Amino acid sequence: MKVLLVYAHPEPRSLNGALRDVAIKELKAQGHEVRISDLYADGWKSQVDRADFPTLAQDERLVPAGASKKAFETETLTEDVKAEIEKLLWADALILQFPMWWFSMPAILKGWVDRVFAYGFAYGVGEHSDVRWGDRYGDGTLTGKRAMLIVTAGGWEEHYAPRGINGPIDDLLFPINHGILYYPGYNVLPPFVVYRVDRFDESGLEPVAERLRERMRTLSTTPPIPYRQQNAGDYSIPSMQLHPELGDPGATGFALHVKNDGGANEQ
Amino acid sequence: MKVLLVYAHPEPRSLNGALRDVAIKELKAQGHEVRISDLYADGWKSQVDRADFPTLAQDERLVPAGASKKAFETETLTEDVKAEIEKLLWADALILQFPMWWFSMPAILKGWVDRVFAYGFAYGVGEHSDVRWGDRYGDGTLTGKRAMLIVTAGGWEEHYAPRGINGPIDDLLFPINHGILYYPGYNVLPPFVVYRVDRFDESGLEPVAERLRERMRTLSTTPPIPYRQQNAGDYSIPSMQLHPELGDPGATGFALHVKNDGGANEQ
Repeated sequence: MKVLLVYAHPEPRSLNGALRDVAIKELKAQGHEVRISDLYADGWKSQVDRADFPTLAQDERLVPAGASKKAFETETLTEDVKAEIEKLLWADALILQFPMWWFSMPAILKGWVDRVFAYGFAYGVGEHSDVRWGDRYGDGTLTGKRAMLIVTAGGWEEHYAPRGINGPIDDLLFPINHGILYYPGYNVLPPFVVYRVDRFDESGLEPVAERLRERMRTLSTTPPIPYRQQNAGDYSIPSMQLHPELGDPGATGFALHVKNDGGANEQ
Repeated sequence: MKVLLVYAHPEPRSLNGALRDVAIKELKAQGHEVRISDLYADGWKSQVDRADFPTLAQDERLVPAGASKKAFETETLTEDVKAEIEKLLWADALILQFPMWWFSMPAILKGWVDRVFAYGFAYGVGEHSDVRWGDRYGDGTLTGKRAMLIVTAGGWEEHYAPRGINGPIDDLLFPINHGILYYPGYNVLPPFVVYRVDRFDESGLEPVAERLRERMRTLSTTPPIPYRQQNAGDYSIPSMQLHPELGDPGATGFALHVKNDGGANEQ
């Protein structure tokens, strides 16, 4: 497989840096081709602004979605964004690796999503009408590809458990896994999460590294999270409500959008 | 009251710009003092990196939490960050206003959180031991102050309903409301959300503006979301699990951490 790893930590000599190297080495050992987007090393520009749309007239109002649509259609996105889109089209699998800061991704990685996931590429794809609300949530430009997160977190695993104070890790990552990765079509694998990294010492690395190697060895076979496809009949269109008879009677919130709360099944 | 509005949209001539002006005007009409952090206009630096820690030796490993702690304690945070902390301490109420991009805040605003919410200021506050896990989730530096979100979203309101395909809006905003605002002590008010903004036209502004004015008039009286306080006896320490007898039997996920699923009560 071809694998793109997007890496967002400012310090190469970090646990994240060590895990990145473990992942790359194991992927290569498995015969995969690997490319890296190292956002800090590359000096990635984080924020969406006028500079992203060079053809926008100086006094023209910036409407981000509209400007993104026009720039994607006319191939006038900036070169850094075009290069990332090319990598995403090249890769069979995308890995986003980051430290969880304030229960989400670092700003630089959010800026990678905000800028690279252009209108017409990652959203605004397909027919939008009363009977179809575009190709998204399981359909889209990136359908058939796989994606997964490698995440480090400061707190204890129990704090992210179903009744833990931070909220369940799967729910905290849902806006990313479902809203960013599943949306343009990826099959999203369960995340690889390392907890308690604030007090991590070198002697703890090897068991974590081995767990990560195993995930890299099974990158092409791990069953994805069984999110419900928008266009497979589970939702009313255009209201996009899950049909009343679907979902576990006790399920609420994000869990409704997973076919089987008990675990991952092949889609 | 003293109100700080942190605003994150790149175009002043946008719906967000119009709503910001409506909010400021109404707050001032109510006799409140208002200060603005206009992140794009101010050229806010989005990403956490070595430049945030001027006293870090050139060959020293950057550990973001550790560097943040040291810089906060020794008052060597950068001037832009110090200025924002001063504003947060000054304000009785904080408003974060942003367009929802990819189900979260724009990178520039995430970078404001990542950089300004320093260790010792917004996290890592208070005693950490087997019997107390710091002052957070209802306690902390910003206790007694209020916070709320003003958010614009592209999709329909139904798509963010309890059974809507995007996931419920309150759950999508939980990592921000609970994880970023409640964590350092804010009382978090229900968010002000405008939907379908991609097809918004000027004629639709007035009803939305009036709804926002009403929220600004009631900023000091609107009951906050009744999140459960970490240190009020609902959680086991240090595992931070919600006690088994608490929470609606049917509740799962984020909803467990709200005292009353039915609505907001004064804490």
